[in-house]
Amino acid sequence: MAEFVKVSRNQVRRKPERGRYDKETVYSIIDAALVCHVAFIEDGEPFVIPTLHVRSGDNVILHGSKASRLLKHAEAGNPLSIAFTLVDGLVIARTPNNNSVNYRSVVLFGRGHVVRDDAEKMAVLEKLTEKIWPGLWKNSRLPNQTELNKTTAVVVSIENASAKIRQGGPKDEEADLSLPYWAGWVPVQQSFGEPVPDPLRKGDVPIPEYLRKRLSEQ
Amino acid sequence: MAEFVKVSRNQVRRKPERGRYDKETVYSIIDAALVCHVAFIEDGEPFVIPTLHVRSGDNVILHGSKASRLLKHAEAGNPLSIAFTLVDGLVIARTPNNNSVNYRSVVLFGRGHVVRDDAEKMAVLEKLTEKIWPGLWKNSRLPNQTELNKTTAVVVSIENASAKIRQGGPKDEEADLSLPYWAGWVPVQQSFGEPVPDPLRKGDVPIPEYLRKRLSEQ
Repeated sequence: MAEFVKVSRNQVRRKPERGRYDKETVYSIIDAALVCHVAFIEDGEPFVIPTLHVRSGDNVILHGSKASRLLKHAEAGNPLSIAFTLVDGLVIARTPNNNSVNYRSVVLFGRGHVVRDDAEKMAVLEKLTEKIWPGLWKNSRLPNQTELNKTTAVVVSIENASAKIRQGGPKDEEADLSLPYWAGWVPVQQSFGEPVPDPLRKGDVPIPEYLRKRLSEQ
Repeated sequence: MAEFVKVSRNQVRRKPERGRYDKETVYSIIDAALVCHVAFIEDGEPFVIPTLHVRSGDNVILHGSKASRLLKHAEAGNPLSIAFTLVDGLVIARTPNNNSVNYRSVVLFGRGHVVRDDAEKMAVLEKLTEKIWPGLWKNSRLPNQTELNKTTAVVVSIENASAKIRQGGPKDEEADLSLPYWAGWVPVQQSFGEPVPDPLRKGDVPIPEYLRKRLSEQ
């Protein structure tokens, strides 16, 4: 069972509701992150890699070109730490020590196991596919047995997770508030551009409805 | 002296120049990343946290609200692994196993030491400030002795670093190229929004030239 033990917040001045660090908040940050960073120990040294993920209940599922390195550690039941980070803005203060970043982040700890069952692998691939592009799964050729055999997915059970959220302006000293320097924050946004069709395509396929819909929602 | 030993690339079909994994490429990825993820070992378990950084020659300088935890490991000369990740696009393939991400990433290994000299601390703060907002340093109240004393910065010497770059379309099988499914990639962009002035300000300060300039360049 996942625990949410280490919760904190940097900036509570204007929006003091603490309820935001419940499971729902932690999971919404995990779900909103396109990629995550997984740390593990190899030969006594720390190692961190970026990879794709999708959450399923109290588990985070990892998959991707680098999963093979993780696989070894997941099979051995080694401890993993995973960070999910969303940069929301850059905070400009009146003095450098107070410059900061507005962000939402989660760090979790857990251990993984490798997915071996074909039906479970298929479900993992569907979840990963639908996470970013709802509707893509049904607009694809589904994996065959050879591809399933090559699929390496790791399910990490969340043992505990902590969220950290910073928002709003700089925390300058009262005496600095009337200095003639601009202070505030600059929002940072991540957005999708115009889709580029595969140069290797044979015949043209129009941009499908699921993709149009997702792009129109941003 | 930094070594760049583990270089690889996923997709070399259309742009086979290998020289992109030289020091210049690795450093350009580090410099373009707004934040990084630092892994270290604590009580025998891996730990990863996001933080701010700036590169200075063959060093990466870390600073931020979480630096205190890192400080302990830097002081002890413990090994660190740091990842810098830029997501450039999402790759949609004709079959789920080939969905992918276009990205540029660097993973480096090194050990840190804590900055203790006041002049060096001042230089670190200036570098961090100017990394994102060139011109901000001169538009700020500079740190006083109390603030310098509270500043915790860590210099990590890069022992080795590896870059990984993926770009372009999906790597689907030849037999799948004529399937009636859309395939290609969707660019992902990070951009700055309209600056928001600090609600706590006393008196209005117009948006300064350095900030206007930076926003107009994106």
